[in-house]
Amino acid sequence: MIDLSLGQYNLVYNAFSFTIAMMGAATIFFFLGRSQVSNDYKTAVTITGLVTLIAGYHYFRIFGSWEAAYTVTNGTVKPSGGPAVNDAYRYVDWLLTVPLLMTELVLVMKLPTGESWSKGTRLGLLAALMIILGYPGEVASSFGTRWLFWVLAMIPFLLIVRDLFVGLRDSIAKQPDNVRGLINAARWLTVISWAFYPIVFIFPMIGFSGSDAETAVQIGYTVADIVSKVGLGLLVYIISVRKSEAEVPSRGTGTPLAAAE
Amino acid sequence: MIDLSLGQYNLVYNAFSFTIAMMGAATIFFFLGRSQVSNDYKTAVTITGLVTLIAGYHYFRIFGSWEAAYTVTNGTVKPSGGPAVNDAYRYVDWLLTVPLLMTELVLVMKLPTGESWSKGTRLGLLAALMIILGYPGEVASSFGTRWLFWVLAMIPFLLIVRDLFVGLRDSIAKQPDNVRGLINAARWLTVISWAFYPIVFIFPMIGFSGSDAETAVQIGYTVADIVSKVGLGLLVYIISVRKSEAEVPSRGTGTPLAAAE
Repeated sequence: MIDLSLGQYNLVYNAFSFTIAMMGAATIFFFLGRSQVSNDYKTAVTITGLVTLIAGYHYFRIFGSWEAAYTVTNGTVKPSGGPAVNDAYRYVDWLLTVPLLMTELVLVMKLPTGESWSKGTRLGLLAALMIILGYPGEVASSFGTRWLFWVLAMIPFLLIVRDLFVGLRDSIAKQPDNVRGLINAARWLTVISWAFYPIVFIFPMIGFSGSDAETAVQIGYTVADIVSKVGLGLLVYIISVRKSEAEVPSRGTGTPLAAAE
Repeated sequence: MIDLSLGQYNLVYNAFSFTIAMMGAATIFFFLGRSQVSNDYKTAVTITGLVTLIAGYHYFRIFGSWEAAYTVTNGTVKPSGGPAVNDAYRYVDWLLTVPLLMTELVLVMKLPTGESWSKGTRLGLLAALMIILGYPGEVASSFGTRWLFWVLAMIPFLLIVRDLFVGLRDSIAKQPDNVRGLINAARWLTVISWAFYPIVFIFPMIGFSGSDAETAVQIGYTVADIVSKVGLGLLVYIISVRKSEAEVPSRGTGTPLAAAE
């Protein structure tokens, strides 16, 4: 455990609280918005809300773990002597949410039945493998071990990127005009936001050290979680609303955009 | 109470937290998904969500009990001196959820009314009897007593297995083509995942001892609970969606699988 400055401690503390509020609000938005999409897209929107719900739960736990790990006395922050900050919460969260993010992306494309299963299962398993390979590196104290598992986890990550850009190219080309650009954006948002994680992972190995590294890692993962979960979720929701309206034009109580915005 | 290593303590701690998140997310998924099945299957899906809700509650309690039973100071784990980990939470959970698991399996088959009642009641009572007979063994300190109640609890378990494979054979043969394989899978998943419990039960009797036994028992039961409750629940949900769509083809605004996936 490292001594933090009061500013560093508070920055992370407030970022965690911000994230609890953000994830909670996003969850309610997606669960309520579920009634505004057609049956075909309800499961995609449900899963979108489950991702932010699970993340909100884990940020609530991480917040508590952060608070318990330090003692603030007269403006000075010291390790409390109790359990250290439990970084495993992040990996437990990702093990659940990252395969679900792949699932929501596949579901919102509404591929032919067999293809949904095969692509969704493959992407979900690769995502889980990526997280499982990252964890031994995260908890290792030696930089050699950290690099080894970083490289191993990058393999499934690159396979996912290839699947999203090569394997899904034909499926994306067949999407309706009014959502093709958004689905492309969802794909890019996934790849770019997921690329944050391996970068944050190597902060301690490239010169950030001590309390700077701890603060940068916590803030880095938090920003990446918000973009990849809430950002992607909003895209999936808007795509679901537009496709629902386009496919059931007579139902419309409004224009696609009025409902989406 | 036994001294655990920090790694063992954290493994169980994180597994419990993971399970709270998993059960909570599964519950919301089933409760929201209830709107995507026809009236005939709503009760099966409701009960599926109740099982994961009850399990999530108990894992929340078990997590608290685990945390309170130990004190972590500067990386060392010691019994706190307060109440020991309360294993009764598991048996209380199973006493409620195991008969409900039998019920959801019978309900999703949509047998003729009288048969549903008689088969469901018989399976539910056998399941409750199995749990009640297991508990005196779980809390016994002598291996002789543990074995005695293990054997007694195996009797209703084997009767349940016989019911699922012999008693329900004709009913399963009458299920629609598009779900017969899934119902068969649900039956096998039940029997295989339930077989974990008597195996985990005998860990302490076959040489696992001390902190290894405690860790293996906690992780073993947790994995079995996830497979038997969330795994079976997902099968029941997919079967419900497929049967709903097949039975009300005119309603469909989408394919069965789009809603199930």
